Amino acid sequence: MIKQAAYGVEPWSLKESGLNMDLLAQSESVFALSNGHIGLRGNLDEGEPHGLPGTYLNSFYEQRPLPYAEAGYGYPESGQTVINVTNGKLIRLLVDDEPFDIRYGTLNSHDRVLDLRAGTLTRHADWTSPAGSRVRVTSTRMVSLTQRAIAAISYTVEPVEGQVRLVAQSELVANEQLPDSGRDPRAAAALEQPLVSEEYSADNDGQCRAILVHSTRVSGLRMAAGMLHEVEGPSRMSIHSEAYPDVGRSLIACEVPLGEKLHIVKYIGYGWSSTRSRPAVRDQVAAALALAKLTGWEQLLAEQRAFLDDFWAGADVEVLGDPEIQQAVRFALFQVLQSGVRAEGRPIAAKGLTGPGYDGHTFWDTETFVLPVLNLTSPAASADALRWRHTVLPLARERAEDLGLKGAAFPWRTIDGQECSGYWPAGTAAFHINADIARSVLDYVNATGDEKFEREIGVEILVETARLWRSLGHHDAEGRFRIDGVTGPDEYSAIKDNNIFTNLMAQRNLAAAADLAEKHDDVAERLGVSTEEAASWRDAAKAMMIPYDERLGVHPQHEDFTEHAVWDFDNTPEESYPLLLHYPYFDLYRKQVVKQADLVLAIHLRGDAFTDEQKARDFAYYEPMTVRDSSLSACTQSVVAAEVGQLELAHEYLAEAALMDLRDLERNTRDGMHMASLAGAWIALVQGFGGMRQTPDGLTFAPRLPDGISRLTFHIRYRGRTFRVRVTRHEATYELLEGEELAITHFGEKVTLGGKATRQKIPSITEGPRPKQPKGREPITHR
Amino acid sequence: MIKQAAYGVEPWSLKESGLNMDLLAQSESVFALSNGHIGLRGNLDEGEPHGLPGTYLNSFYEQRPLPYAEAGYGYPESGQTVINVTNGKLIRLLVDDEPFDIRYGTLNSHDRVLDLRAGTLTRHADWTSPAGSRVRVTSTRMVSLTQRAIAAISYTVEPVEGQVRLVAQSELVANEQLPDSGRDPRAAAALEQPLVSEEYSADNDGQCRAILVHSTRVSGLRMAAGMLHEVEGPSRMSIHSEAYPDVGRSLIACEVPLGEKLHIVKYIGYGWSSTRSRPAVRDQVAAALALAKLTGWEQLLAEQRAFLDDFWAGADVEVLGDPEIQQAVRFALFQVLQSGVRAEGRPIAAKGLTGPGYDGHTFWDTETFVLPVLNLTSPAASADALRWRHTVLPLARERAEDLGLKGAAFPWRTIDGQECSGYWPAGTAAFHINADIARSVLDYVNATGDEKFEREIGVEILVETARLWRSLGHHDAEGRFRIDGVTGPDEYSAIKDNNIFTNLMAQRNLAAAADLAEKHDDVAERLGVSTEEAASWRDAAKAMMIPYDERLGVHPQHEDFTEHAVWDFDNTPEESYPLLLHYPYFDLYRKQVVKQADLVLAIHLRGDAFTDEQKARDFAYYEPMTVRDSSLSACTQSVVAAEVGQLELAHEYLAEAALMDLRDLERNTRDGMHMASLAGAWIALVQGFGGMRQTPDGLTFAPRLPDGISRLTFHIRYRGRTFRVRVTRHEATYELLEGEELAITHFGEKVTLGGKATRQKIPSITEGPRPKQPKGREPITHR
Repeated sequence: MIKQAAYGVEPWSLKESGLNMDLLAQSESVFALSNGHIGLRGNLDEGEPHGLPGTYLNSFYEQRPLPYAEAGYGYPESGQTVINVTNGKLIRLLVDDEPFDIRYGTLNSHDRVLDLRAGTLTRHADWTSPAGSRVRVTSTRMVSLTQRAIAAISYTVEPVEGQVRLVAQSELVANEQLPDSGRDPRAAAALEQPLVSEEYSADNDGQCRAILVHSTRVSGLRMAAGMLHEVEGPSRMSIHSEAYPDVGRSLIACEVPLGEKLHIVKYIGYGWSSTRSRPAVRDQVAAALALAKLTGWEQLLAEQRAFLDDFWAGADVEVLGDPEIQQAVRFALFQVLQSGVRAEGRPIAAKGLTGPGYDGHTFWDTETFVLPVLNLTSPAASADALRWRHTVLPLARERAEDLGLKGAAFPWRTIDGQECSGYWPAGTAAFHINADIARSVLDYVNATGDEKFEREIGVEILVETARLWRSLGHHDAEGRFRIDGVTGPDEYSAIKDNNIFTNLMAQRNLAAAADLAEKHDDVAERLGVSTEEAASWRDAAKAMMIPYDERLGVHPQHEDFTEHAVWDFDNTPEESYPLLLHYPYFDLYRKQVVKQADLVLAIHLRGDAFTDEQKARDFAYYEPMTVRDSSLSACTQSVVAAEVGQLELAHEYLAEAALMDLRDLERNTRDGMHMASLAGAWIALVQGFGGMRQTPDGLTFAPRLPDGISRLTFHIRYRGRTFRVRVTRHEATYELLEGEELAITHFGEKVTLGGKATRQKIPSITEGPRPKQPKGREPITHR
Repeated sequence: MIKQAAYGVEPWSLKESGLNMDLLAQSESVFALSNGHIGLRGNLDEGEPHGLPGTYLNSFYEQRPLPYAEAGYGYPESGQTVINVTNGKLIRLLVDDEPFDIRYGTLNSHDRVLDLRAGTLTRHADWTSPAGSRVRVTSTRMVSLTQRAIAAISYTVEPVEGQVRLVAQSELVANEQLPDSGRDPRAAAALEQPLVSEEYSADNDGQCRAILVHSTRVSGLRMAAGMLHEVEGPSRMSIHSEAYPDVGRSLIACEVPLGEKLHIVKYIGYGWSSTRSRPAVRDQVAAALALAKLTGWEQLLAEQRAFLDDFWAGADVEVLGDPEIQQAVRFALFQVLQSGVRAEGRPIAAKGLTGPGYDGHTFWDTETFVLPVLNLTSPAASADALRWRHTVLPLARERAEDLGLKGAAFPWRTIDGQECSGYWPAGTAAFHINADIARSVLDYVNATGDEKFEREIGVEILVETARLWRSLGHHDAEGRFRIDGVTGPDEYSAIKDNNIFTNLMAQRNLAAAADLAEKHDDVAERLGVSTEEAASWRDAAKAMMIPYDERLGVHPQHEDFTEHAVWDFDNTPEESYPLLLHYPYFDLYRKQVVKQADLVLAIHLRGDAFTDEQKARDFAYYEPMTVRDSSLSACTQSVVAAEVGQLELAHEYLAEAALMDLRDLERNTRDGMHMASLAGAWIALVQGFGGMRQTPDGLTFAPRLPDGISRLTFHIRYRGRTFRVRVTRHEATYELLEGEELAITHFGEKVTLGGKATRQKIPSITEGPRPKQPKGREPITHR
């Protein structure tokens, strides 16, 4: 775990002072820059020391075999793993014949700052070599949000005490050696040296440029990486570029007198394709570099800031009274934006492009946690991510057919749309992902009023997922519509009957598909939807079975759940969490123990299906058995805690979601950011304390603050408007900043946002008794 | 599938006339000889052509990695696979410079006879070489039932038309090349060349002997194989033996004039150990060979026949009116005897030692199907198999602890006692194996009155399995004892709550453990059983939850089973069976479709828990959804069909069980015999048509014959007695052949077997309407 405030508590930046070698890998993740297309981990310019070197291109992966001790029908035979592509951020430095390596010599000072408004990572190092030569190295790195193929580095070296001879070796390196991943040796072998050189070139005509083209062995994808330099420095300077199959290198050698400096701007370009030719991919990178050079470093910086200014104007969240959460939520918004803003027809992975965790796969959490944030802050990015789902519908239809089902079955985990889950009880059986995607489509359309998207993308996704649900369930003798043998969000229960979350989400999916088919009858006709079929969706939705335990007066997470033995929390030592690493699935599956909010997530996302009393009773029932062995839980618990009046508990869960990576709470931040948990920080603030919900009739609010937050301000983009909500202890102020009049609901009362801000009273509430959590699994107290 | 009567219909032998190359691998399994320690597949003497060469030693295995696409806590990391050990049955023959190979030249005649009373496989071949030399080759092979380390071959070659020059090369060959197994390449690699040579020697001092010693790479087991020859032949003869790391060879060259012959007796000895030294294992084999030679071929034959005569005197089953079943049940008894009679502290594998199927693993079917036969025909073999379970109790205790449970959890599949199951929903979760073993202990003691075994072996197995059940289940709010999240016999349902078979078997296990702990209180005390603990077992047994569907008036196989959708049998084409190869588990698990008798097996093994009406209703309910994709089903369906009066259906299921391998009904006889299904032939006849049950109060009978069997006679060994039951259409005759008076029950009435045979009337019954089976899954009609 990272100690408090490892990155300072500035409101608009993360600052690391000094260099903690133990946190190197985590900091590489935290300082990762991305635009959703290119991702650069926060590795040091000179490459070493490193925790985990990483450069990623969205959806650029290699295939590897998925082995099974005992195989079964329909098991995916090959998996996909995001690979570390050609590293273009490398600038090695020789200072008077000694390599600049902070492990040797004396590091007089070192700091790194991630600037959330500038969109840059800046580093200052003041270093004395073992032989006594002292230099100041300053670098600023960006991955452009406006030129998606481009990253750039401004790199400056100055002598501090006297003239130095410097050689900067700016490189492209393919097939970097990675630390042992500890994975299955066959899979590891497939991923070692994943890139096969196809072409390499270097120019010495003043461009100071090199380009490498590679392809992957099995998945057959092609990529090009290029670099181009602008160099300013002393008069005695020589520059030479060279290229080899796996290395491109520009050598800049010079003597720098005291008072002068070597300044390099390195433009890095990336492109990849599964279909285009070698020259096409190569030339695309050369063109991107040319454009970046034409733009120039200062203009790239300016574009970057303008892009972010625009984002923050409609997305910023201000948290008075809790500076750590203030920093964390802005960091979270920045990372969420980075993960998908320029993905453009590619998915948003669970880790974004910040690390190799989960093999770079995309799961249900993108639609369930990340897109709800983007829908209301950067909706075009949401639309892109959903368009990607639409492009993989043919694969999802095939998968459904393989499984003997109708419609489309989206993969549980994937990069290119193929199912890559190697353990079906927590993969294929988690059919709820289909309803999660459908919900996201509905929410996006609700947030934007984007009728074109609804027609072109929405109807088809809703129809095909409704077909899946209709074929997955059946009516029992009493006429109830049952969905048997599936896995809900809680992965400590699997293959269960009538998981309430699944059934409620499927219910909305079925009903909405019927509505959309009616609204867009021409599209529906093209998709072969008959009135009989649509009616069967409505019928199934209406008859959906929602189990209820009359004895306890609570909803069982799935049928018979409350009959199961309760996990022996008292005899589970703290070091035995996460439970899945210390107890067998068979035991987890048959007991009352909840990995992550499941029924409580149903309360959050289908609040209309529960009475207020049920919400309170259910929340109180599940709290003592929810262990949060998943990062996809704290934010949901925060939202529902706030809704049932447990404001202090909600604040703690908010902190856990928001600080997941900044504090490395799950000890795996080294593998990349938890995008959904970061998104959860926003969800907990806006949907929890802001009490915001998207409903068919528009946005509703029921804001209430915990003691530790004196004022909460957030911005929402909704149907072309931008407005601000400011919540204090006793009132909420709604102010339309841009766009036409908009009606919202405040604690059930309609409020119209128009010319000037409107203030609304917040009804008071008495906090009930605080529910207990499993021993040792209480939320963190962050202050 | 093998066409009818491929092996004739002789009552005491199997005869293959000619040589059907398409059935080579199946015939190798059918003609396999074993004594439970050594197993020789029925490969031709000259080694080629072959389907699958095979020589096995009970429990001699190699380890191999078990790979997982996504690993989990408690998954076994390595598996065990029986390996093809040094082949000692090989005698190559050169006839006038041409190898005797039935694929070339002219095979004038060929037949093989497995003699079920002699315990030998005899072969006659009359062959003309491509160059026109004609010889008659006669070989008789045995695996000694009296000298467990010994196999022997009598091999004779005679010229038919004129003098021939012969070279017989009698060999030991280690690391034979095997046909591609199509398995995971890493596992295959581990099993290629599994034997590492440790020592080899050949003698030319008149012994004509060679010995090879090898060990396995990973499992570290050591084996020795040796051969010793007695040769009679013409005067012009030279004999030479030689040895290399993987080959031992005796060359016997001679010129045989017409009217003379070459006659070789080859004694083959095997020994293996996980602990003893190289010289010890080598010398053990040399000693066994010396003893075999001293005994001599004729005496070995005589011992073999005497051993079998004794077996048949207490085991034979006579079936008048159905000659195919007559042959099949004797073959079945012979194979079941072979599989375990000299296992002596080693397990009985699912395939015996007849092939590499299921990796040579032992499952629950040994205790559930094989031992019930041996209990009442060859009880010492049963005791041995259960003693093996007792020796692996320490591993089973460790496994239980790993799983967070008390007592002992026996492995689902294993060779040496380690869990080797790579798919836990159909492995670890199938806890019923523990109750199956406990039941087998109880039935063995019931059958023999072996008090010493009960004290030394029985109590501990019962206590440790009772502890497992007590920790696996829990009481619900209504006080019912639930066992959640387990898999019953039907592998098309997994991880279910309150599987009735499991609960009923556990119930008996718990109650019997308490009884035994009370009876052997000193043993119980040593095992730490308090009166409180024993009482908790009785309580759990008493409160055991047995779900019942009031609406349908049937027992659901597990809780909520009858709420699930019924499999769409009408739209399942015949070629889509077995279903597990054509449909995903997720779909099978959530629908009403039964791979193999589960609730119906509960009716068979816990008939006391069902009323007659329930039995009939339940049987009728499950028949239309039981697809018999397992060989462990037909015999159970036969027994219960007979019990509920469906005698013709019972006859068909009997045939399916009995002819499983002789007709290759599941198309995998090439990999070895289905021991449990073979045992099922006896079970169907004796427990089905004989209506025999073992109860705490002794044996009960309720015999009834189908139309196609005019008389059924079977022998039973029970508590030191041997008696014969002869059933005809209207009466049953019980005759004590050996031992003291014995009370049995005939249709509920006590009958005392004493001096002379007693005849009892059979009450008449009207056969009700025949239940339907799933389309295309009706039992075979064998005539």
